[in-house]
Amino acid sequence: MKTFTLAQLAEFLGADLKGDAQLVVRGLGTLEAAEADQVSFLSNPKYVSFLSITRAGAVLIKPEQVADFSGNALLMSNPYLGFARLTHLFDDPRPSTGERHPSAIIDPQAQLDPSVHVGPGAVIEAGCKLAAGVVVGAQCYLGKDCELGENTLLNPRVTLYRRTQIGKDCIIHSGAVIGADGFGFAPTGQGWEKIAQLGRVVIEDQVEVGANTTIDRGALGDTHIGRNVKIDNQVMIAHNVQVGEGTAMAAFVGISGSTKIGSNCLLGGSSGYAGHISICDNVQITGMGMVTGNITEPGTYSSGTGLLPSNHWRKSAVRFRQLDELSQKVRRLEKRLDNQDDNS
Amino acid sequence: MKTFTLAQLAEFLGADLKGDAQLVVRGLGTLEAAEADQVSFLSNPKYVSFLSITRAGAVLIKPEQVADFSGNALLMSNPYLGFARLTHLFDDPRPSTGERHPSAIIDPQAQLDPSVHVGPGAVIEAGCKLAAGVVVGAQCYLGKDCELGENTLLNPRVTLYRRTQIGKDCIIHSGAVIGADGFGFAPTGQGWEKIAQLGRVVIEDQVEVGANTTIDRGALGDTHIGRNVKIDNQVMIAHNVQVGEGTAMAAFVGISGSTKIGSNCLLGGSSGYAGHISICDNVQITGMGMVTGNITEPGTYSSGTGLLPSNHWRKSAVRFRQLDELSQKVRRLEKRLDNQDDNS
Amino acid sequence: MKTFTLAQLAEFLGADLKGDAQLVVRGLGTLEAAEADQVSFLSNPKYVSFLSITRAGAVLIKPEQVADFSGNALLMSNPYLGFARLTHLFDDPRPSTGERHPSAIIDPQAQLDPSVHVGPGAVIEAGCKLAAGVVVGAQCYLGKDCELGENTLLNPRVTLYRRTQIGKDCIIHSGAVIGADGFGFAPTGQGWEKIAQLGRVVIEDQVEVGANTTIDRGALGDTHIGRNVKIDNQVMIAHNVQVGEGTAMAAFVGISGSTKIGSNCLLGGSSGYAGHISICDNVQITGMGMVTGNITEPGTYSSGTGLLPSNHWRKSAVRFRQLDELSQKVRRLEKRLDNQDDNS
Repeated sequence: MKTFTLAQLAEFLGADLKGDAQLVVRGLGTLEAAEADQVSFLSNPKYVSFLSITRAGAVLIKPEQVADFSGNALLMSNPYLGFARLTHLFDDPRPSTGERHPSAIIDPQAQLDPSVHVGPGAVIEAGCKLAAGVVVGAQCYLGKDCELGENTLLNPRVTLYRRTQIGKDCIIHSGAVIGADGFGFAPTGQGWEKIAQLGRVVIEDQVEVGANTTIDRGALGDTHIGRNVKIDNQVMIAHNVQVGEGTAMAAFVGISGSTKIGSNCLLGGSSGYAGHISICDNVQITGMGMVTGNITEPGTYSSGTGLLPSNHWRKSAVRFRQLDELSQKVRRLEKRLDNQDDNS
Repeated sequence: MKTFTLAQLAEFLGADLKGDAQLVVRGLGTLEAAEADQVSFLSNPKYVSFLSITRAGAVLIKPEQVADFSGNALLMSNPYLGFARLTHLFDDPRPSTGERHPSAIIDPQAQLDPSVHVGPGAVIEAGCKLAAGVVVGAQCYLGKDCELGENTLLNPRVTLYRRTQIGKDCIIHSGAVIGADGFGFAPTGQGWEKIAQLGRVVIEDQVEVGANTTIDRGALGDTHIGRNVKIDNQVMIAHNVQVGEGTAMAAFVGISGSTKIGSNCLLGGSSGYAGHISICDNVQITGMGMVTGNITEPGTYSSGTGLLPSNHWRKSAVRFRQLDELSQKVRRLEKRLDNQDDNS
Repeated sequence: MKTFTLAQLAEFLGADLKGDAQLVVRGLGTLEAAEADQVSFLSNPKYVSFLSITRAGAVLIKPEQVADFSGNALLMSNPYLGFARLTHLFDDPRPSTGERHPSAIIDPQAQLDPSVHVGPGAVIEAGCKLAAGVVVGAQCYLGKDCELGENTLLNPRVTLYRRTQIGKDCIIHSGAVIGADGFGFAPTGQGWEKIAQLGRVVIEDQVEVGANTTIDRGALGDTHIGRNVKIDNQVMIAHNVQVGEGTAMAAFVGISGSTKIGSNCLLGGSSGYAGHISICDNVQITGMGMVTGNITEPGTYSSGTGLLPSNHWRKSAVRFRQLDELSQKVRRLEKRLDNQDDNS
């Protein structure tokens, strides 16, 4: 177990320290659960009352909160960011560099920097280029001519189809499938003619891809994921989608073919996007949002109906079917009243 | 192929037997499809008319239904439960105990009971503890320090990240990823700072996890799945979620971070749950339900709108946008009529 | 890189050629992006204006469009189908026949045609039968007694549970899990009794199954996927579902147990289907459609509400809850007016 003094943490964060610089810190915890050898943080003002009852050895707070807290404190303008940085000190180490498990099958025509780590059972096909510090977890499969930038980490059992390109400092989680065929078929009259998918998936630096997420390769051009995009588990990104920098998407987001998502968007869980549409920068879609057309104005958008007890819901759902009639009925009532007024 | 006499099945179930005790039974079937050497069951009263036409060699029925059926019968108060128990007699056997495929890669620092089965290509890292009767299917990956309780079955190609804990008598299906990083990032102003996920996934006894389901590990504390929880395929459970005992969830359920689901809940397919909310015990959510707030009363809840022919739907959808105006218009009409009444 | 003359492509397609028969073609591209050594196509009349600016070396067009285009052209009544056929000329070749990677683990009791290709780390259990031209990608797992028809391609890391049957000319993508247990449990009063799933998955010829899709095996009978069905990524098909020929389904479609889907249906992304229902042939469901009952008339169906700015949406969502009251209020207003009329 790693330990640090509070002084070491303050230095690491560039934070001001109030209290016992020699306190030994063995981990992190929430205000509610942290022990005396753990550091906690106050970010959401809703939890300010926990400051008086926390058992945490020290708390990351904003300078202006120092009056509210008598314990040891690390003062930062953004305590949540400070907490995020501290987590890495207590994380498990990455696999050691340069190790190649004897059971891994690495094509002699693949080019691996000497520092690359390859786990047991991984398969790396000809033409792959893996830069310094890359980790290929156990049982990963890298098709021909894939390229991975420096320090990119593939967790166990990631699948990359041929020619997938991934930048630096990316993290890909288990079960992700990147570069499978886009879903393209031409109707023949008697069935479907498959359209071979000739493009690639190109992922820029600092992207994270969650477990069991799928990103399909382009039909002609490429599917493109911008820098610093964060993708949760079980997301589906279809062929030729373009995602702008810094956009984050929660689980079960589904983006149909050729759609463009702007930069710095937040796509809520299970939100769905029609094909061939364009979403501008700085758009937020709430969970289960159904996006069927272009969005050209930044802002927050929603769809769906709120949860109701099912008996109540059934009544509203029936009325939803009659909504056009109801509206016309109201318009007729208005006219009748207007006529009365005219005649009175 | 296994065969049983009807008398053996009656004894196995503790059921009363009516008819030919020596009948040879070779399998199970529905009332419609069962053959003369198969046993069927009547559970849903909707199908009572099939009793007169079924070719099944025997039928599991309630004692009060015996008058309706002239054939061989096994009498039980809960025929569906009886049927469920019989299925196991005709199922394929589990892999044999104690077998370790030579291609499996088992770290010498892992502790496996002698009866543990390990399939081809499986990887078991240091510090893992596997109890008696555990089956690790082909190509599974178990990260460092995972623990599996007695008789737990991992089907081929299950991935467990480090420190995952699974209880006794669990079944995990192929493609499931348990313990991947929760989706946690702090905004930096220029992008995202990853929050290392320091907790674990803890799964209690008798849990089933479907194919390609993902359960993320906790950020600080653990993600916790209670005893006897049944999880279908392609479910997504985010970091620090707590699920109470006996809850069942259908495919594509998505539960966001830190949400608590009560005991004995039934979560319909594709239903979604916002983060940091709490659902009490004995709640049922219908398919595609959108749950954005706490639920404190047991009962059944729904959201969404019913399916309509698209032309009709479009009209209702347009009116949905105008619903607030429509309500205000109706209120104004009421006032005008009220004013008339006052003035008359 | 493969090259063809325009004359060769015309012959391959059976298309009429206008222009330079000796033009060397090195690939395909969209009207916007194609270069002088690439062929493009005009299918959607929306893009007809691109004909005048494209740099493509030749364009696939309809004979009646020939007047609109001065460049080299291939004339076909269905240019999109022609394009689909051309893509295969420029696709990567399938893995070579007859190769068995030494790391693959093939049970001596499995029957493989000599031409079968088996990639590294694949596991093929006893009783499997693989016909001529089958490709088993790296790290696939085939449980006991699976059967694959001629030329079927399993991409890397496909999992087939025991007794799965797949026809000819199918393509299965990475991470797909076919034949896992259906989600069947009988309530015991204290919890759940698992129902062993004794059926199979049967997939007919020319079916494509997307990455990380799951198709569960039947409880008693089989789950059945008809000929020429096309299934996108991350689809979930539950036990005993029947899908008719030629039906296509987009990502995140979820079909609950025992439901029958007709032939030539188009199931939109994230649309969901209740269990034990029946959808007739030639039905189209739009994205996120919620299908809870039988559909007996061909046509297009939808559900949900359109996307709105969240502030606006919140107002409509509140009014949705009050929709039954609103309708009753309008009816009362009508009566009051009717009474006035009667009294006047």
